[in-house]
Amino acid sequence: MSIEHEFIDWVKHLCDPVSPKRVLLGIGDDAAVVDHGDHLTVISTDLLADQVHFILGETPNHLIGRKALAVNLSDLAAMAAEPVSAVVSLLLPRSMELEQAQEIFVGLKELADQFSVAIVGGDTNCHDGPLVINCAVTGVVPQDRDVANTWNMSAAKPGDVVLVSGYFGNSIAARHLTFEPRIELARYLAKNYAIHAATDITDSLAIDLAAVAKKSGCGVKVILADIPLSESAKTLEKSRAGATATIGVDKELQIPASVASALFDGEDFELAVAVDPRVAEKILADEQLPCLLTCIGAVTSSPVFEVVDADEQVVEIFPRGYEH
Amino acid sequence: MSIEHEFIDWVKHLCDPVSPKRVLLGIGDDAAVVDHGDHLTVISTDLLADQVHFILGETPNHLIGRKALAVNLSDLAAMAAEPVSAVVSLLLPRSMELEQAQEIFVGLKELADQFSVAIVGGDTNCHDGPLVINCAVTGVVPQDRDVANTWNMSAAKPGDVVLVSGYFGNSIAARHLTFEPRIELARYLAKNYAIHAATDITDSLAIDLAAVAKKSGCGVKVILADIPLSESAKTLEKSRAGATATIGVDKELQIPASVASALFDGEDFELAVAVDPRVAEKILADEQLPCLLTCIGAVTSSPVFEVVDADEQVVEIFPRGYEH
Repeated sequence: MSIEHEFIDWVKHLCDPVSPKRVLLGIGDDAAVVDHGDHLTVISTDLLADQVHFILGETPNHLIGRKALAVNLSDLAAMAAEPVSAVVSLLLPRSMELEQAQEIFVGLKELADQFSVAIVGGDTNCHDGPLVINCAVTGVVPQDRDVANTWNMSAAKPGDVVLVSGYFGNSIAARHLTFEPRIELARYLAKNYAIHAATDITDSLAIDLAAVAKKSGCGVKVILADIPLSESAKTLEKSRAGATATIGVDKELQIPASVASALFDGEDFELAVAVDPRVAEKILADEQLPCLLTCIGAVTSSPVFEVVDADEQVVEIFPRGYEH
Repeated sequence: MSIEHEFIDWVKHLCDPVSPKRVLLGIGDDAAVVDHGDHLTVISTDLLADQVHFILGETPNHLIGRKALAVNLSDLAAMAAEPVSAVVSLLLPRSMELEQAQEIFVGLKELADQFSVAIVGGDTNCHDGPLVINCAVTGVVPQDRDVANTWNMSAAKPGDVVLVSGYFGNSIAARHLTFEPRIELARYLAKNYAIHAATDITDSLAIDLAAVAKKSGCGVKVILADIPLSESAKTLEKSRAGATATIGVDKELQIPASVASALFDGEDFELAVAVDPRVAEKILADEQLPCLLTCIGAVTSSPVFEVVDADEQVVEIFPRGYEH
């Protein structure tokens, strides 16, 4: 049992409440919202380490760098912020060849260029240990919006429906390295629709939706058959010859391995939003959407996480996910 | 020979020029200046690792956390920016006890509170490796100033004098962990005087002054007898029984170990500024200065680093410093 979760909870408690004068949204959401004067700067940071988030020597070098920035951009997307800048800290194994470090950085820089993110600084050191990359990013909320339009995790309402982008499951096969941060989708939704709450799916669909529900004082109900499964998750299930997983708090429920992977494996880095059902209807009918959105369930008033199976059985589950 | 320096140079080249629309000052200075809208946000990041910047188990835990933030605040001071926020990434050894992680974070938080820095986010992971802490900080330039008053390293002029805060040498004994980021001094100087260029002394007095000189297309001349030596540096010399170091490019110069430590050891985290001599005169006569400032030399037109010894011999030296 690592001390990580206990430590994070303790840090949150220690730093809360943050000064309301400057900080509009601090620790605990996908990124922070800080008032630096006449506008809002959104800041986020993520650290990746060899053997935890990638395997040096197995993971293609440029995809390591790409992921280091992409996970941060995914946080900005979950805030509906436009990315502006990044600072990059690298702790390199002393034995690493220059070319390899360059390949890693190129992957990061290419993604930065794709999203017009300026890499504005950093810190590079070598040590006798594993590769570590930290990015911190800033973004802004466009002037035609105010803080109410900087999405957060705590404003979902009972009756809201839950929409998710893309596909889920078995992201470890490749997508955790190649996913598209949902900046464009977030920009489009923030401009055109009232979104109650949003998050990106990092730990797992179950954990991250449960976090939105908990912060909003609600529960969530997910219709298992409606979760969009990735091709990779479907393949996973075939390779496991129809294996199932058993979930459920009070009663047991058998679900296919593909669905379990979609619910619990994490690192899908898709966007999930909670919206009023009438708004959801308009969104789902919108032909200009930059990517697929799927309704997978609803926000409930009872503070539990429930799933609905093919027989319309409703079963409460424990959210779990990938432990980094 | 580690790849660190070559890699950093390569990164700078790859990222330069950054988009002029948003980034007023990018990689290569103490921190970045980014225009997020109607004002300037200053961003900096630094990563500390066990066995490189501190020794876990020997360094007091709270001073590890303190240093992780302090080195970043020192960067903001070198930009004359007011600190606003920090994000903190921690990579903890899997075997670390919660209490130790908390002690480290408390040291960081106490310094944050002292300078009204809001810790607005972070990322914590565990791994089978050494402790790593990354901070990224933001600061703002007060509204009564513009970018010309955000100090940088490249606007020193021949004839400027070089003023430094505090004392130098043997910081490894304690001050690299306990130094006061020069935020207050920077605030006072920026408000009251025209500063041409500034930096904080991290790698070494020699390396960092040489960097200012090089970026400004100038050289620098340091009067060795005028470098304010720390008590610790003086003690170091006594303990080494009058040991000397030999420096010099074309001719050899013997200097006391205390002076060599002040010039080359680094991690003093003092502020150095280049100012017009008439301004320097006023600054040095100012009784409201929040800390000691000392004139230690001048900016020259010839692009070399020279030192002047007690016999008024002028000797060119190679700047060197602490290799992290």
